[in-house]
Amino acid sequence: MKRIRKSEKPIIVVKSYASCANLGPGFDILGLALNIFNTYFIYTNSGGRYHLEYKGEINDTIPLDENNLIIRIIRKVIRKNKIDKNLTRAEIPLKIDIENKIPIQKGLGSSAAAIAAGLLIANKFYGLKLSKEELLETGVEIEGHPDNIAPSLFGGLVICYKDNNFKFKKIKIKNDYKILLMIPEYNIKTKEARKLIPHKIPVKDCIKNLTNFYLLIDSLKNGNLSETLLFVKDYLHQPYRAKLYPRSIELLNDLIQKLKIPSVISGAGPSVIGVLDEDLYNLYKKHKRYLDNKYEDFKQIISSINFNGCEVV
Amino acid sequence: MKRIRKSEKPIIVVKSYASCANLGPGFDILGLALNIFNTYFIYTNSGGRYHLEYKGEINDTIPLDENNLIIRIIRKVIRKNKIDKNLTRAEIPLKIDIENKIPIQKGLGSSAAAIAAGLLIANKFYGLKLSKEELLETGVEIEGHPDNIAPSLFGGLVICYKDNNFKFKKIKIKNDYKILLMIPEYNIKTKEARKLIPHKIPVKDCIKNLTNFYLLIDSLKNGNLSETLLFVKDYLHQPYRAKLYPRSIELLNDLIQKLKIPSVISGAGPSVIGVLDEDLYNLYKKHKRYLDNKYEDFKQIISSINFNGCEVV
Repeated sequence: MKRIRKSEKPIIVVKSYASCANLGPGFDILGLALNIFNTYFIYTNSGGRYHLEYKGEINDTIPLDENNLIIRIIRKVIRKNKIDKNLTRAEIPLKIDIENKIPIQKGLGSSAAAIAAGLLIANKFYGLKLSKEELLETGVEIEGHPDNIAPSLFGGLVICYKDNNFKFKKIKIKNDYKILLMIPEYNIKTKEARKLIPHKIPVKDCIKNLTNFYLLIDSLKNGNLSETLLFVKDYLHQPYRAKLYPRSIELLNDLIQKLKIPSVISGAGPSVIGVLDEDLYNLYKKHKRYLDNKYEDFKQIISSINFNGCEVV
Repeated sequence: MKRIRKSEKPIIVVKSYASCANLGPGFDILGLALNIFNTYFIYTNSGGRYHLEYKGEINDTIPLDENNLIIRIIRKVIRKNKIDKNLTRAEIPLKIDIENKIPIQKGLGSSAAAIAAGLLIANKFYGLKLSKEELLETGVEIEGHPDNIAPSLFGGLVICYKDNNFKFKKIKIKNDYKILLMIPEYNIKTKEARKLIPHKIPVKDCIKNLTNFYLLIDSLKNGNLSETLLFVKDYLHQPYRAKLYPRSIELLNDLIQKLKIPSVISGAGPSVIGVLDEDLYNLYKKHKRYLDNKYEDFKQIISSINFNGCEVV
């Protein structure tokens, strides 16, 4: 394995952000970008072959070969844009040095962040000048659903839908919320979590989910978090996956019922996120010791919403 | 049957409005009030017993005895508010003269309008001074779902939900839309239509319905009807009830695909409603002859949104 020479100046630097998908009643369509990010330092590799090196939040599930998400997405961009039909698997002449800060397999969109980064790296390196909107479609082809990719690419609170292509709408919300992240020690594989969602659900649940979905977003827009608290309940995924993360559900109920903080499972879990305005942040600080003691198996982070999305810096 | 003496001055006059429930993806929770109304003229009946007399849009399904919705709702208000424990069935000393303009069994909320009127009549006659919010709960107990009652009582575009009580939110939308109503000759009984909704639906349909629900309302708020057109599709009720109203579905598809007018089935059907801004209204006028010829079994009405709701005038 070649060592990255630190004295070299990277030719591209990309920042890519964590995201919380679903946000309770927005299963598979709603996502929020967070100010927790990975940084990707790109160097040309004189060896002519790609080379990846990770620091920070890593585990042994990250492949360093052609199964790596960044490499897969760069290849996909190459193929889709017919950059070089004769390009073989070996011919991505980049060294990529990654500072990972987004926790892996915690429901915080680390895969989507890697995909978003790969899209921007390929776009910049091959001089494609594609818009983020054009890149989104390629990203979703790999991820399967857009609710992490879209906020990771565009920032903010994003609702996704499909007509012919994947589309999204950014929803204007207050930019001074703090986001409480509670990240447990255990991991969850999104694929496993997805298998627990039934094919059909009661129409009554769907109707309750509809009102919660609309009114959750509406209250976040208006900054009325005491209302948001009434509408965090989801009927499509959390109840079916609860057995995967009983501790997260215990914490979730505590945050909602005891601390009155609007809280949801982030993505497929197991992390729990809460939305805080100034009053709730003060309340959180008062109860921090209680949370520290009762949930010592969870790491607590106070973050905020990222409004820019993945960027070449 | 006693004749109403026209020279008497009514002690109460109430106007109660038509409404379109569901509006496509808002099954059982979304409703819009229309400027088509029934007027209720209330006289004291010296005979001491209630007496009802209908004019206008009537059919032989309207009972004139204690099964009449207005009488039922007045009794319910009496019971709930303990006005007179000894009050017998005969003792509603009112003559009610009704000018019905809301078509019956066409999915335009004629029952809800009767209930809303009954609530306001009882409230006024017995001097209860209850708010419309307090009256809503009693209305829903009789109707079973709030998506017609709420807009009929409060006017405008209303989203309904339940925590402990039935709640609603009025959604601010532009007040200069025209509403195209296409009312077919045939009738539909809401109870029969409700039986066709399955107990469970595919979660995929629920997700598509979620985005359409949010984005339909969002586009109506913003006055962007070309977007609304993209989000009128419902996955919860119209597909399952289509066999009840094949002609309405044919018209619906024509309005959406050919005329590009955002259109939905009103309530449980069979009426079809479309939302028009100035451009779409001009387009509609151009195609009116086409609609007249192809859909001569439908009555066409141009109405508008009512923003006040049921009122004592």
